[in-house]
Amino acid sequence: MTNPATPILNRVTGPADLKALSDADLARLAQEVRGEVIQTVSETGGHLGSSLGVVELTVAIHAVFNTPADKLIWDVGHQCYPHKILTGRRERMRTLRQSGGVSGFTKRSESEYDPFGAAHSSTSISAALGFAMGREMGQPVGDTIAVIGDGAITAGMAYEAMNHAGHLGKRLFVILNDNDMSIAPPVGALSKYLNEIAAKGPLSLLKAAAEEFEAHLPGPMRDGARRARQLVTGTPGGGTLFEELGFSYIGPIDGHDMGQVLATLRAARARATGPVLIHAVTVKGKGFAPAENAADKYHGVSKFNPLTGEQAKAKSNAPAYTTVFGNALTDAAARDPRIVAITAAMPSGTGLDIMARRFASRVFDVGIAEQHGVTFAAGMAAAGLRPFCAIYSTFLQRGYDQIVHDVALQGLPVRFAIDRAGLVGQDGATHAGAFDIGFLANLPGFTVMAAGDEADLVHMVATAVAHDEGPIAFRYPRGEGMGVEMPERGVPLALGKGRVLREGTDAAILSYGAHLSEALAAAEALAAEGISVTVADARFAKPLDTALIDQLIAHHGALVTLETGATGGFGALVLHHLANSGGLERGRAIRTMTLPDRFIDQASPAQMYEWAGLSAKDIVRCVKQALGREVMRGGLRLV
Amino acid sequence: MTNPATPILNRVTGPADLKALSDADLARLAQEVRGEVIQTVSETGGHLGSSLGVVELTVAIHAVFNTPADKLIWDVGHQCYPHKILTGRRERMRTLRQSGGVSGFTKRSESEYDPFGAAHSSTSISAALGFAMGREMGQPVGDTIAVIGDGAITAGMAYEAMNHAGHLGKRLFVILNDNDMSIAPPVGALSKYLNEIAAKGPLSLLKAAAEEFEAHLPGPMRDGARRARQLVTGTPGGGTLFEELGFSYIGPIDGHDMGQVLATLRAARARATGPVLIHAVTVKGKGFAPAENAADKYHGVSKFNPLTGEQAKAKSNAPAYTTVFGNALTDAAARDPRIVAITAAMPSGTGLDIMARRFASRVFDVGIAEQHGVTFAAGMAAAGLRPFCAIYSTFLQRGYDQIVHDVALQGLPVRFAIDRAGLVGQDGATHAGAFDIGFLANLPGFTVMAAGDEADLVHMVATAVAHDEGPIAFRYPRGEGMGVEMPERGVPLALGKGRVLREGTDAAILSYGAHLSEALAAAEALAAEGISVTVADARFAKPLDTALIDQLIAHHGALVTLETGATGGFGALVLHHLANSGGLERGRAIRTMTLPDRFIDQASPAQMYEWAGLSAKDIVRCVKQALGREVMRGGLRLV
Repeated sequence: MTNPATPILNRVTGPADLKALSDADLARLAQEVRGEVIQTVSETGGHLGSSLGVVELTVAIHAVFNTPADKLIWDVGHQCYPHKILTGRRERMRTLRQSGGVSGFTKRSESEYDPFGAAHSSTSISAALGFAMGREMGQPVGDTIAVIGDGAITAGMAYEAMNHAGHLGKRLFVILNDNDMSIAPPVGALSKYLNEIAAKGPLSLLKAAAEEFEAHLPGPMRDGARRARQLVTGTPGGGTLFEELGFSYIGPIDGHDMGQVLATLRAARARATGPVLIHAVTVKGKGFAPAENAADKYHGVSKFNPLTGEQAKAKSNAPAYTTVFGNALTDAAARDPRIVAITAAMPSGTGLDIMARRFASRVFDVGIAEQHGVTFAAGMAAAGLRPFCAIYSTFLQRGYDQIVHDVALQGLPVRFAIDRAGLVGQDGATHAGAFDIGFLANLPGFTVMAAGDEADLVHMVATAVAHDEGPIAFRYPRGEGMGVEMPERGVPLALGKGRVLREGTDAAILSYGAHLSEALAAAEALAAEGISVTVADARFAKPLDTALIDQLIAHHGALVTLETGATGGFGALVLHHLANSGGLERGRAIRTMTLPDRFIDQASPAQMYEWAGLSAKDIVRCVKQALGREVMRGGLRLV
Repeated sequence: MTNPATPILNRVTGPADLKALSDADLARLAQEVRGEVIQTVSETGGHLGSSLGVVELTVAIHAVFNTPADKLIWDVGHQCYPHKILTGRRERMRTLRQSGGVSGFTKRSESEYDPFGAAHSSTSISAALGFAMGREMGQPVGDTIAVIGDGAITAGMAYEAMNHAGHLGKRLFVILNDNDMSIAPPVGALSKYLNEIAAKGPLSLLKAAAEEFEAHLPGPMRDGARRARQLVTGTPGGGTLFEELGFSYIGPIDGHDMGQVLATLRAARARATGPVLIHAVTVKGKGFAPAENAADKYHGVSKFNPLTGEQAKAKSNAPAYTTVFGNALTDAAARDPRIVAITAAMPSGTGLDIMARRFASRVFDVGIAEQHGVTFAAGMAAAGLRPFCAIYSTFLQRGYDQIVHDVALQGLPVRFAIDRAGLVGQDGATHAGAFDIGFLANLPGFTVMAAGDEADLVHMVATAVAHDEGPIAFRYPRGEGMGVEMPERGVPLALGKGRVLREGTDAAILSYGAHLSEALAAAEALAAEGISVTVADARFAKPLDTALIDQLIAHHGALVTLETGATGGFGALVLHHLANSGGLERGRAIRTMTLPDRFIDQASPAQMYEWAGLSAKDIVRCVKQALGREVMRGGLRLV
């Protein structure tokens, strides 16, 4: 497929150029943008389905509102490709999600058209309300528009924001992009409710403005006009959940009917005095048959053939950690009926879809609701079940207070399976699993593990199953394992005991987690230079294997701790132990290799770890520096 | 006032005894319990108003349901005094919130009648749903009942839980205890909505059961019966927010009319097949005129005269940190119109009521909604304002992901004023501010401070006002300052620079935060033993004053870091620095004094810190141990 012709888009250098276009040209522009998105993502991979669903909304918002003075905030931000194409980033879209390229999400540092970055869900209404109050207090802010999906709006945070916005009563636009399909099918009663509203279709309208609404519709409107006029004739009565929260409600409208979308936005912009919710029904993957027909609507895709939709499959030698976890948990669940699993809208991302295929009634998808999910798991643990809470490291931050207050304080045996530990590649800094070691291992009573390889992950699942004495967590990275031999069945590990993988005499590397492979590679390279290195896998950040640490300190000239997490985690706990047991008085050289004190932008994980100073080369350099050996600049050879 | 006569209560040893009582006796029992609560709290202090509001509900729930097989979960738990009196803890209530005594909240380790502890808000529905699913999966769990206030139900977490409960559709009881007054007047559109429902009174009812409801009302009912029968005749139509979330809705009922409450609970218990919300309207402080008439309804009181309600005033020499903060921020706000403040339902607890009295429109109470509050602040910062987010350390845990994802990642200058840092006394472990140093100071780009005394708090407010380069936080404890001289006006501190308060030669104590006074006391005691100690106040956990740390290490035989927080915080960052700069190779003795690896139950703060090993005596012991001096057991004298 050659690049589609884009005569109108070629004339658009920014949103200002949309003002001059006729409605018909805007509709054509949307088609051109859609083709451009398909073409781009076919070359780069990325979040295709969501972006295709908001093409018309994007064009219409930029045509009707005055960005960047008006603040347009995309919830999650993964649907922002049309927005980026229209806001001066068209040429750079070929670098999407790549090293040095444009982010896969909105990002303040990237463009003035991204007033508030995102990547985690359900933040947009809060941020938009903050901007709106800035405007009320004299800051140079125009209108504020949040676009939020039907999955994201089920999160408690969005509800808190709507509740507050309804209370404040200031002008604010929330566009509910209802495609009935967030990342997983949206969960919960609200989803059912939205379906019911949509089924009532075509259109009902905010009661207050109903009488005057028609007068404010733009004059000559084609297809959209007829349906938009039904806005006024629709039965007002009833009242919606959104109205009960203090919003005026318009909808549902067809989010792919440009005339209807334009008319609605123009009317709302002309009339709104308080918070308005515009309910647009869209189709995820709209306009690209392979996406529309796929179960996941091409939510996140690798490169694909733009004609057939066929995706390039990544070559894989070792099984993915996610799959290893999903299989191990499913095996355990087959033996233990008390095992249940909780996911927050990520059944396939976490591998719980594997368990759900065999034990559907024991896998709970709570929706985008990590707070509830963690405490729900705590309740199930208190009831005698063995819950596994499978949440990515970065999203587990959403349930932190629940982890402290409901799980740790009560010593309840909730099992946390923490995928996406460390740097994650193309999703970039917002999705990095950087902080979980510290925010869990410093909580009293928690057992905290990290898998050094995929075989150990299987054993850690078994360890967690067997651990009824309190909360326990284990982290593992995105991507594939090391290709080690897999056990037939997991065996519980001895709590607080690490393992030594390679014995040496000069220095010791104490690795925590899946960077074990880098530690081993570094030891190999150091051996080639005549430096003999012990490599140990701590397995536990808590309880620490203090005997192992003391041994390593006693018998080596230097100790390097290694973890794919921030300061304040594993290395810090090793140092606390050594300080308070007098171990530092030996004067040994100690280095703590952690993620650096900055956020790392998207690239390949290997590249990101190189930037982070956590590659095998960096370990080599660090060990030599600790031993006082000369470090050659850039000249280190790795086997 | 002599203790009121309690003839019925005297015969109650547990909830089982309530089954034999007539409805009239249950109503009398409620009055006796009310008197007992007033008498108890007059002697101990505590959360009076909330407990008085749920006396009838408590008696009725225990009369109708079968606790502890049925799981009764009190949201927040501060209204649990009647519950504790009825569940075998009557005699121990005189030890309420005291060292070794009963907790001021529900607590699993205290009683089998507390199936899920609480203290933070809005967790009850999630936990109850967890128990309900445990029952569905064969665990020995009866019915599950969550009692949640109208303030707590506005939190996103409660909404997430209702959404999920509506989706699952299992039998579950949620009693909305609507007293229109949580800790502060509840905020938000939901509050207005609840008022509107209540104003419609008397009673509407779940549509589905309406027809059959009357048949299931217990036969002979007096006052309550007449009104309860109106349940059936009330207009069904409409539908409420709760019904839209998938709940059957009953209410509003008069939560102080025992007949009505009993009838409703019995009918609901007999009929419910899915989740039911029972909306009970109550009066906070009910039955104690001084409480009912007070603005805060005696939410949290010190000891008081049970006849007049007059509260014992604590003697105070130095100003409370909270007041110092409130005044300093108000002064700054008078000079800078861009300063705004955010509280999550704690205007007086945070001292923002002081600012609100002068600048009401610039203080935003977002309700119990820390997630939204943090991102709302981030939005305001992005709009050009200077937001101060004033949230207790323990509650800030609720906004952790928002701090990471919306504030830190974007480098937005949100100012976090963190009250209740460290151990807090009678509220116990659930309210300890233990983790904020670690969960903030390990985030890239954050500036993190702690006030060594109340004068420094004023300077830290000024520092935060002036800091537009990124997020900044400062922590300070509950209670009064050291009584130091107060500055006329705050002056911004040099970023990342500590101060030396006392110079010595043998050892150095590097204090972070308000335990500075203990450090100074320890130094004084050590001096009396001939040990010369430097005391420095780090002021910053980030950026660290590395020059100061290097100096201290270079010139002293031992370094002790001191903080009222968990591991992984200030001391850990000092160790990381020393490790990676080679500073550990001096072989100096280093000790990191932190909160211990366990939760500390309620007592006086001084007692709690003694248990925690963070008293001046402990510092003395630690310094001597680090220096290799003999430590006398228990025999240390302090000046």
